[in-house]
Amino acid sequence: MTLSTKKQPIGVFDSGIGGLIALRKLAELLPEEDLLYLGDTARVPYGNRSAQTIIQYAQECTRFLLDRSVKHILVACNTITAVALGHVRQIVPPAIRIIDVIQPAVDVVMREKYQRIGVIGTRTTIQSGSYELEIQRRHSEYPITVHTQACPLLVPIIEEGWETHVATEAIVTTYLSAIQQAGVQALILGCTHYSFLAKTIQKILPDVHLIDSGAEAAKVVAQNFLTQPLQVSPERKIECYLTDLTQDRAQQFLGFPVVIQKAEFGGFS
Amino acid sequence: MTLSTKKQPIGVFDSGIGGLIALRKLAELLPEEDLLYLGDTARVPYGNRSAQTIIQYAQECTRFLLDRSVKHILVACNTITAVALGHVRQIVPPAIRIIDVIQPAVDVVMREKYQRIGVIGTRTTIQSGSYELEIQRRHSEYPITVHTQACPLLVPIIEEGWETHVATEAIVTTYLSAIQQAGVQALILGCTHYSFLAKTIQKILPDVHLIDSGAEAAKVVAQNFLTQPLQVSPERKIECYLTDLTQDRAQQFLGFPVVIQKAEFGGFS
Repeated sequence: MTLSTKKQPIGVFDSGIGGLIALRKLAELLPEEDLLYLGDTARVPYGNRSAQTIIQYAQECTRFLLDRSVKHILVACNTITAVALGHVRQIVPPAIRIIDVIQPAVDVVMREKYQRIGVIGTRTTIQSGSYELEIQRRHSEYPITVHTQACPLLVPIIEEGWETHVATEAIVTTYLSAIQQAGVQALILGCTHYSFLAKTIQKILPDVHLIDSGAEAAKVVAQNFLTQPLQVSPERKIECYLTDLTQDRAQQFLGFPVVIQKAEFGGFS
Repeated sequence: MTLSTKKQPIGVFDSGIGGLIALRKLAELLPEEDLLYLGDTARVPYGNRSAQTIIQYAQECTRFLLDRSVKHILVACNTITAVALGHVRQIVPPAIRIIDVIQPAVDVVMREKYQRIGVIGTRTTIQSGSYELEIQRRHSEYPITVHTQACPLLVPIIEEGWETHVATEAIVTTYLSAIQQAGVQALILGCTHYSFLAKTIQKILPDVHLIDSGAEAAKVVAQNFLTQPLQVSPERKIECYLTDLTQDRAQQFLGFPVVIQKAEFGGFS
């Protein structure tokens, strides 16, 4: 790996600010690497949109990262991974590795040999059946039963900052009731936002292993770079772009101060 | 008015499907008129976005209606009215009248001589101060106190169909607590979706007059046409376009069957 390659950033993108939690994890795990984030906050949420629309938006976001010479792409959004990953791959040169948020979460299920799991996510992620398909693809030696539940209200609740409101536990309890009855061993938080509700979910499902899809994906990206010789860089750069600048909680999601810039691409000006 | 003018549709647009409730009202009030609806469901909700982004989206929607020769435009969205109405006017020829959803609701307040009112809406609508500005502009002879509250979770709850969930009353109660303490005489439902929560809101504020901004605007449009000589048309046409076709509740919002078509414009294809 040459020094010039080293100075290329790792690109991370999401429909909104949920992926900033994965960026935060990545920033901790890879203190030397330049990072570049894009959140499509002008069109968030993707979770109830059609596949055709999500594919268009995801390819536009990917081109934005490619134009900025990223060396690696983390698709930090379950909805995009679920319906548009193949279409993102089509426009990315083979030298640039793409990590998504579904495979790393399923890796944990396979490693721990869980046989009954739950998956929660946006409507589009759940309807796509992507987690079930990824599990089938692995040809497990034992049967794995997957219980899924779409939870469209959880992202708005988290973006409103109402994680501890009395209504939130009632809403989460309703969403998790079938999964709870199924007696799952693990629950995949199949949306990067949901880690903010981990405490509430764990209270309802105390003995269930919660698998945070965003955090697991960040670990995989970090492993790819930590196995390479460490190149000490005098200072690393983290750039953060959003297509609309109204997300009050972006800084809180990220956890450290970064100047947030407006992304100009496609229909945005 | 010539017959050819009569055959031009009345255009209605909204960020999503909330405006279909106003369209439904309009269809009842004007059984002879052709109606054309556009909902920007590929980019809904507008309510937490920046003014710059909303203006761009609203002008794109307006051009879509103008390209289809509408004779009248109902801006059936409080958020668009609040931040982009002037920018919509800039691109509409003076012969085409524009009705918004803020002025008709304020008309009711002035007519009833209310002195303490509440307004609930999306974050952007409330932050714009548009209702307060419209009330100031009327130069009331008596002081009118306006209590406002942004309610970002109500649109997602309604789109999830959870109007009667136990959590919903808790959420609405939290949002309305300051308005309830202020002892308002009337509450403007400053988002077209909110009419679906009228029962819950009325339960919390039993003696308060609820003013439905979408329904009031539909009445104003209807008055403009009902004062003109009635032209009996053999059959009227209602066309409904959405920028994305995944809104399960569209048909329910509208209340009668209509073929919903995909709108192709701007960045959409």
